[in-house]
Amino acid sequence: MFRQVFHELTVVTRGRGLYEFTGEVEHWIRKSDFRDGLVTLHLQHTSASLLVQENASPEVRRDFEKFFERLVPDGDPLFEHTLEGEDDMPAHVRTALTTVNLSIPVRHGKMALGTWQGLFLWEHRRHGHSRRVALHFIGE
Amino acid sequence: MFRQVFHELTVVTRGRGLYEFTGEVEHWIRKSDFRDGLVTLHLQHTSASLLVQENASPEVRRDFEKFFERLVPDGDPLFEHTLEGEDDMPAHVRTALTTVNLSIPVRHGKMALGTWQGLFLWEHRRHGHSRRVALHFIGE
Amino acid sequence: MFRQVFHELTVVTRGRGLYEFTGEVEHWIRKSDFRDGLVTLHLQHTSASLLVQENASPEVRRDFEKFFERLVPDGDPLFEHTLEGEDDMPAHVRTALTTVNLSIPVRHGKMALGTWQGLFLWEHRRHGHSRRVALHFIGE
Repeated sequence: MFRQVFHELTVVTRGRGLYEFTGEVEHWIRKSDFRDGLVTLHLQHTSASLLVQENASPEVRRDFEKFFERLVPDGDPLFEHTLEGEDDMPAHVRTALTTVNLSIPVRHGKMALGTWQGLFLWEHRRHGHSRRVALHFIGE
Repeated sequence: MFRQVFHELTVVTRGRGLYEFTGEVEHWIRKSDFRDGLVTLHLQHTSASLLVQENASPEVRRDFEKFFERLVPDGDPLFEHTLEGEDDMPAHVRTALTTVNLSIPVRHGKMALGTWQGLFLWEHRRHGHSRRVALHFIGE
Repeated sequence: MFRQVFHELTVVTRGRGLYEFTGEVEHWIRKSDFRDGLVTLHLQHTSASLLVQENASPEVRRDFEKFFERLVPDGDPLFEHTLEGEDDMPAHVRTALTTVNLSIPVRHGKMALGTWQGLFLWEHRRHGHSRRVALHFIGE
């Protein structure tokens, strides 16, 4: 019998960086006794992203930040929209260059992630925020 | 009872820039009386993108364009593929750096977008085009 | 009657570049007699991407590579994480800038791709790999 379930997760950030939340999604799947289906994650923000990446060592996380700091620097004189801070427009651009939206098959109660893949929330603002992820499962 | 419905939207562009079409998708959801499920949008083009972003003030939209004009400039001598115009290969690259594909949960008849999120079609060619978005809903 | 089916595809790469696999997905859809629904593709790797792009002429493919080689150069002194080779961290960044995750409506037994769209696996490591794509179909 097919069914669908909605849920919402909050990821609290402490400023820029990658925050893994694979465990929270797995916990919801286990607790809800989903066996086979499709889980969709939608991040409800315009200055943070969802990222599927290596359960990253600290230097991989630092390298991601350093790359984006060079590519989309804070305070870039290119940007007109600076009212909300010099990291605001760069945060929107970083979000546009990554994604806020993922759909992952679930089989035998587990997401079809690769061995090295984890789910991360990527905070692009300098200050911490409380970020909401809308979750949806459809399946058996 | 689960059901699924297909639809197609056309977004007419007048050259480069962001065109919001959140209202058109909401109208389809309301008209079709979808309550709970998953809506998927797939843009059927290789030189335009789908973007979830702030219901952007004019200067935010200009900043997005300016960033991409610097990152992937038209007429860049790097590119060999120039037959279809100097904005053609940059348009493909901009599309690859963003996305053409989104899936968003629908609950109580509304997409689970954040307060500041809207759905945009991002035209990457200099001239206007008629862009088709394939829509799919599965749910109740 | 709704049903869902899982599958796994392997795309063997011979180093950096775009490998089209639209035909393999179409073959699975035909063989399984799917008529209407949603197909989801999830690439189980952190140094390769999924890309929907023009059934690209060789020079378009070369231009994509050249753009990424300039944007995220191998051996960039910016990166600390170099243990697995000077193309490793650039491959993670290229993956983050594109995507590993797609959902495409299927109608009358065909994916709702545009006339010029094909599904590509984009290998970002210099050496060849065997890349796994998890597939899911839900529909009728």
